[in-house]
Amino acid sequence: MNNEASSRVSLLRSSSDAATRVFATILTRSPISRADVARFTGLSQAAVTKAVTPLVAAGLIDDTLDSRRHGLPGRPASPVAVVPDALIAIGIKVNPDELVGVACDLTTRVIASQQPSLSSNEPAAVIDAIVDLVRSLEDELDGLGNRLASIGVSVSGDVDTSTGVVRESTHMGWTDVHLGTELASRLGQLVVVENDVRALTIGEHWFGVGLGTASFAMVTIGRGIGSGLHLNGEVVEGAYGVAGEIGHLPLTSPDKICACGRRGCVEAVAATAAIVATVSAAHGRPLTVEDVVALAHAGDPAATAAFNEAATVIGTAIASLVNLVGPEVVIIGGEAVSNFDLFEERLLAAFAEHAFGTAGRCRMIVRPHTFEDWARGAAATAIRSLVA
Amino acid sequence: MNNEASSRVSLLRSSSDAATRVFATILTRSPISRADVARFTGLSQAAVTKAVTPLVAAGLIDDTLDSRRHGLPGRPASPVAVVPDALIAIGIKVNPDELVGVACDLTTRVIASQQPSLSSNEPAAVIDAIVDLVRSLEDELDGLGNRLASIGVSVSGDVDTSTGVVRESTHMGWTDVHLGTELASRLGQLVVVENDVRALTIGEHWFGVGLGTASFAMVTIGRGIGSGLHLNGEVVEGAYGVAGEIGHLPLTSPDKICACGRRGCVEAVAATAAIVATVSAAHGRPLTVEDVVALAHAGDPAATAAFNEAATVIGTAIASLVNLVGPEVVIIGGEAVSNFDLFEERLLAAFAEHAFGTAGRCRMIVRPHTFEDWARGAAATAIRSLVA
Repeated sequence: MNNEASSRVSLLRSSSDAATRVFATILTRSPISRADVARFTGLSQAAVTKAVTPLVAAGLIDDTLDSRRHGLPGRPASPVAVVPDALIAIGIKVNPDELVGVACDLTTRVIASQQPSLSSNEPAAVIDAIVDLVRSLEDELDGLGNRLASIGVSVSGDVDTSTGVVRESTHMGWTDVHLGTELASRLGQLVVVENDVRALTIGEHWFGVGLGTASFAMVTIGRGIGSGLHLNGEVVEGAYGVAGEIGHLPLTSPDKICACGRRGCVEAVAATAAIVATVSAAHGRPLTVEDVVALAHAGDPAATAAFNEAATVIGTAIASLVNLVGPEVVIIGGEAVSNFDLFEERLLAAFAEHAFGTAGRCRMIVRPHTFEDWARGAAATAIRSLVA
Repeated sequence: MNNEASSRVSLLRSSSDAATRVFATILTRSPISRADVARFTGLSQAAVTKAVTPLVAAGLIDDTLDSRRHGLPGRPASPVAVVPDALIAIGIKVNPDELVGVACDLTTRVIASQQPSLSSNEPAAVIDAIVDLVRSLEDELDGLGNRLASIGVSVSGDVDTSTGVVRESTHMGWTDVHLGTELASRLGQLVVVENDVRALTIGEHWFGVGLGTASFAMVTIGRGIGSGLHLNGEVVEGAYGVAGEIGHLPLTSPDKICACGRRGCVEAVAATAAIVATVSAAHGRPLTVEDVVALAHAGDPAATAAFNEAATVIGTAIASLVNLVGPEVVIIGGEAVSNFDLFEERLLAAFAEHAFGTAGRCRMIVRPHTFEDWARGAAATAIRSLVA
């Protein structure tokens, strides 16, 4: 890490717990008055001012804002705001066939974006490709390259963030891949490795829908069925690294075998590959995702039945999640959202059938995530690591 | 409320957020050094001392401890401890056939206990009985009666703690019972109403197993199948008042109709009444719980099959919960734990079959809760309300 980034990162890492909470609050709610920072953090205004001073001196926080220009109501309240490009984070989402990488400022605004395809799923080849992508994004950053502070990489499956190990990723065909340590030694920089849906949830929590809600669940549908939970002010990480595995709730028939080897998992009927396999079998020929979607839109009975079954199981799974943790909002994302019309009716009916009491009041928001949004989630985990 | 309790309660209610966190930390971890209070709360030692001073003056905190006598390691660190009987809380668990009531000190040590039966489930009759029980427990408190600070009542089902309304309780046959406001006006005192399993979870979090773990789930088996979750430092309340409804996950066959009216719920095969009904039907005569347990212990095939099915569904439900929220520990409680031998093998096998990856490392602790423990949970919610 170069000097400009390293002095700022060192300041954040050496900050007191109170100063860290102050920076995190300003980071996610800029511009914000010092009084509101005090209210959100439970600190005195004097303690807030004490925490803000070195952050301003380091160029991480701007305290020269005119409050009226920034639309804050009431009398001037000495607002503060994060300096977005004080530090840069890179986020990379690893897919079986490609990498999606972005370089973002501290508000996860995308400054550079690249999407190289992968020639192999082998860990060594993927690690090489990630290193190349980081270097290539750094080149693109030009004058801001010396502000790169942290890197986040997200992968689907069972990821141990504390050690950077991808323990099991069915989609990548990986078991116990030490991604974090390998990348850190190659790049000479700390790399945060996170489950992809949890990374997306962290991104929504810090910079998206999550800001306005006390609790929410992110449910992604498509290649996999995943979820991330934000409860009691934090993303749920799982004591052993696993949480949010809504795709492996045993909610369908035990004769359905999941790609993970277990019986009756949601993904065994609701993942895109399962839908495609069912419709292909019915038609006696291999079909693509696009074929199956077109057939369903044309009213083909086999395709319609497959989407109905998938939608019913997903709706039942969301009801299960809502009955257990009672979020305020469920955000439905993932690539299958682009065909949400094929899921909507049965999904909502199954949810209504199994939601318990007032849990049924939980709002559902459908939110198409672009490929870049997944990578922005990985960047959000990298930014969060600076203050956690 | 009399003067002795009311001045202490007023002090707690008017405390700053920092002082509240200091008191809550000392309450659950006494004796504790001021340095550790600072560490747990993220406050400076000066701020801790500022918060402690009025609590000591009011007789809520004792700062005259000899640190060596209390077994704290290292050099004297000016330990502080809660004064247990500075305030008294009453906790009452409402069952269909009886009330269980306890009066506790601030550490939920039971000082008085009574268990009157109910002649009717009608809300008005139960409210009368609760008022009588509170008065009777107050009489038993004798010299400490003037320290009664708060009352907690727990009921199974969908309970809105913020309004004190029991919205739906299948076991009580209640819909929209305004228990909190009714009791408050009759008793002239704030009454906290909470779901019974969540109250037990709050009790475990504040004064039980929860203290040593970062996250845990409480699962109760017996009359109902319930759960409470403690994640990210707090019990999960549910944005709309519902959470932990593991008994209504749709994990069994849709032809099983639950007492709640939904299809395929865990309780439809695993609640005690469902097991008794199944075995009674197989034997062509009405059996009691004791009969069914005796038959299962004697190897009766119908009874064995019913417990096996219940155990499999409960184990699958626990795996679902663990896959979603990844707790460090699952505590299994509830009255059916007294016959846990009839559940254990199939429950653990089903859990192992459906737990995803490292989520399977989640420890399980079987913890027999007495009837009094449920009431202590209600008292814990009352104590928590003093500092929340």
